[in-house]
Amino acid sequence: MNLESTTRTHLPFGDKHDSPFYGRDIVSVRQFDEDDLDYIFEVAHEMQAMVARVGTFDLLKGKLLANLFYEPSTRTSSSFTAAMERLGGSVIPINEVRYSSVSKGESLPDTVRTLERYADVIVLRHPDVGASAEAARYASKPIINAGDGVGEHPTQALLDLFTIQEELDAVNGLTVTMVGDLKYGRTVHSLSRLLSKFDVALNLVSPEILRMPAEILEELAESGTPFSEHDALDPVIPATDVLYVTRVQKERFEKEAAYEAVKDAFVVTPATLEAAKKLMIVMHPLPRVNEISMEVDADPRAAYFRQMEYGMYVRMALLAMVLGKA
Amino acid sequence: MNLESTTRTHLPFGDKHDSPFYGRDIVSVRQFDEDDLDYIFEVAHEMQAMVARVGTFDLLKGKLLANLFYEPSTRTSSSFTAAMERLGGSVIPINEVRYSSVSKGESLPDTVRTLERYADVIVLRHPDVGASAEAARYASKPIINAGDGVGEHPTQALLDLFTIQEELDAVNGLTVTMVGDLKYGRTVHSLSRLLSKFDVALNLVSPEILRMPAEILEELAESGTPFSEHDALDPVIPATDVLYVTRVQKERFEKEAAYEAVKDAFVVTPATLEAAKKLMIVMHPLPRVNEISMEVDADPRAAYFRQMEYGMYVRMALLAMVLGKA
Amino acid sequence: MNLESTTRTHLPFGDKHDSPFYGRDIVSVRQFDEDDLDYIFEVAHEMQAMVARVGTFDLLKGKLLANLFYEPSTRTSSSFTAAMERLGGSVIPINEVRYSSVSKGESLPDTVRTLERYADVIVLRHPDVGASAEAARYASKPIINAGDGVGEHPTQALLDLFTIQEELDAVNGLTVTMVGDLKYGRTVHSLSRLLSKFDVALNLVSPEILRMPAEILEELAESGTPFSEHDALDPVIPATDVLYVTRVQKERFEKEAAYEAVKDAFVVTPATLEAAKKLMIVMHPLPRVNEISMEVDADPRAAYFRQMEYGMYVRMALLAMVLGKA
Repeated sequence: MNLESTTRTHLPFGDKHDSPFYGRDIVSVRQFDEDDLDYIFEVAHEMQAMVARVGTFDLLKGKLLANLFYEPSTRTSSSFTAAMERLGGSVIPINEVRYSSVSKGESLPDTVRTLERYADVIVLRHPDVGASAEAARYASKPIINAGDGVGEHPTQALLDLFTIQEELDAVNGLTVTMVGDLKYGRTVHSLSRLLSKFDVALNLVSPEILRMPAEILEELAESGTPFSEHDALDPVIPATDVLYVTRVQKERFEKEAAYEAVKDAFVVTPATLEAAKKLMIVMHPLPRVNEISMEVDADPRAAYFRQMEYGMYVRMALLAMVLGKA
Repeated sequence: MNLESTTRTHLPFGDKHDSPFYGRDIVSVRQFDEDDLDYIFEVAHEMQAMVARVGTFDLLKGKLLANLFYEPSTRTSSSFTAAMERLGGSVIPINEVRYSSVSKGESLPDTVRTLERYADVIVLRHPDVGASAEAARYASKPIINAGDGVGEHPTQALLDLFTIQEELDAVNGLTVTMVGDLKYGRTVHSLSRLLSKFDVALNLVSPEILRMPAEILEELAESGTPFSEHDALDPVIPATDVLYVTRVQKERFEKEAAYEAVKDAFVVTPATLEAAKKLMIVMHPLPRVNEISMEVDADPRAAYFRQMEYGMYVRMALLAMVLGKA
Repeated sequence: MNLESTTRTHLPFGDKHDSPFYGRDIVSVRQFDEDDLDYIFEVAHEMQAMVARVGTFDLLKGKLLANLFYEPSTRTSSSFTAAMERLGGSVIPINEVRYSSVSKGESLPDTVRTLERYADVIVLRHPDVGASAEAARYASKPIINAGDGVGEHPTQALLDLFTIQEELDAVNGLTVTMVGDLKYGRTVHSLSRLLSKFDVALNLVSPEILRMPAEILEELAESGTPFSEHDALDPVIPATDVLYVTRVQKERFEKEAAYEAVKDAFVVTPATLEAAKKLMIVMHPLPRVNEISMEVDADPRAAYFRQMEYGMYVRMALLAMVLGKA
């Protein structure tokens, strides 16, 4: 009988390390304090420098990532795959979950406890709020939340903040304007929470029916973060350092007329940016439909594609950290 | 004209080796004698030791596995992918077959003869009985059967047997109890055949309508393997060394009442295990629905997640062997 | 503000190189002159030699390929994956596009500008004519067209030509017979265009309603390529050096009777090849249904599976070239 030696410890295969994030799950932005953020961004910045210099390197050579996506997300899945491969690690892509054992009724805890027998870290995308926290309770290996329904998408929030810091050199002192659907937009909720740890002012611009939820506003107030709500973009543009755009979806409106009446007020065009600072950035979590016109893409202030690249560096940092290699 | 040099030999690209399994297909458990099993498990045991020590290693560096799945099976597909990647090899994942050239009418022999031009070994999952044998007839490169319908799933049977040996140090002398759907369960059929090569006693526990097929019982009798059939689990628990659980599916019953009447007799709970030996193991091929209650998971005798890990080692061994590297 | 350093140049990550194809897109066969073809085939020939000797090698170690398939194509996708992996590079597989951000309305330019932030080169398969050219206009990293609807599939045409050269040692002086659906067959159009740069004679064999389009015939005439049209295969077989077979699809005919009347005239059997030269080859882009009978497969002149392998070498060459490593 050999139970002891086969009972999995929390160590990845063939590895023994000591590092502050080693073996931890990345489930929510709420788990990070400012020191954590500093550390993550410092490592992400190093990742960027290494990629610029050598493209890839073998920091995670021999490590396996199970990329477990219960719903498709090309962007996030590709970003984690690229992050792992640029670190010299390998990926087990699991995209077809909907057709597979899950349709035979397997629970998430069982799927996760199987995959951690093969892999060293699991990235999980799931349509249900709380799925990552549940997976983390059962798994011994690190779980990284890649979005759980309308819940959290912590790596998105981290890459948003990292983008601001890298593009504008600092977060403190900035005026951040969020525009679009502030009610249902998971990204603006998480980013607001992260920004509330810094010395920033927020402009919240949305149609009346898509205003930022009271819960978030209370958190902003508690943290002493100045914010104001607006129903048009143009008045707040001149003071804006970061313009974070999200989509206003037609389906959110009961009547099409109500949608038609407001939609143009939240579209960013070259004309919008004429009134903006020379040194500011336009961000978007993508996919973008028409809420930023394509003419804006050529403007150096359009940071949304660079934002995607920062995301890869943040995910490289997190993978290296939870595997004890940073 | 250069036909000779381009006609593919049975050698993988850039490789010349001599090893008992080199270049062989893994199609059925019937192809293995006891020496073969000893050899496979010896290599699998080494794989386990290497993974525990270094995580991955470059035994199959530069080798390509075409992972050809005509039907989804997250667990098996991920296990082979992990096995190949832990050996330093690469994987061509082919999961979307249903949508692709096959829907344009391409035959399995043509698909296989194309893929062997790219890869060094092909793992095949197919819904039709005999698909792997047919593929092996046409292919020059090794084919590994990852399940062909209600036919064979030899690597599952091998990992089941390897789990028993690793967990209980030996197979001879054990009492193995199989419970659940013994009629349609491909895994219990193959495992029975493998166990019949050893000195074991079998308890076969199932609802009347899901008894082990006569064909398997005859094979057990011919091999001199003592077995007995039962319609309840509790009486045989105390003498059991290995409890192999499979699911009783409601759909197998014509009337729901018939299902309801028997289903609880085949569910394993902590109470079931109170009467069991301290040194025994509970196995399950997974996915598990409710035939083993989740309370059992914390019991050290619950071996089903460890079983998944043993599966990776067995697949590492087979890949290395057929590619002439073990 | 740090816009300058983050604005992507045309260089892949961590790489600075000078080579004639470095950084170029592969969009259409029309972009290649004879010197280009010579160079591509010289590199492809070296790739073949290297694979025969060592299986894989690390020419593209650390490079990432985004394999972006908007429609499934197991053969082409697997071929590019194998090509990249045999060069030591890594692949980001993106097969589930239909379910993902695209269904949220993202444009191809946005998808491509995101993926180039993660990867060093993008292979694109898309159902719309011109998609690759559009992607190439927006992307800074190289785009390789892996088929855009009824438009181009340049790597297929290149591999077809490379197959002829490798199997028959030269292209000049040959008689090439194309048979089947010459109207809708993208492969025969592109191959005709490439062959028109050489000193070849073409036999075009098809049902009346599936004749080669006038546009292609005009191009052949302008280039001085002798060609003749036929409605039966047998008369042209004896003089044929290359028999390029494509499928006559029943759906192309308005009446089933019309299809039934002609279909057997375009099927290749061992009897067809009795009248053929001893040194000639039969090619097919695959998938094949019944337009070449399986009895032909054992004939050494059947080159269609070898053709698949040549495809891998051509794609290895192109990947290495556009990444500045050949």
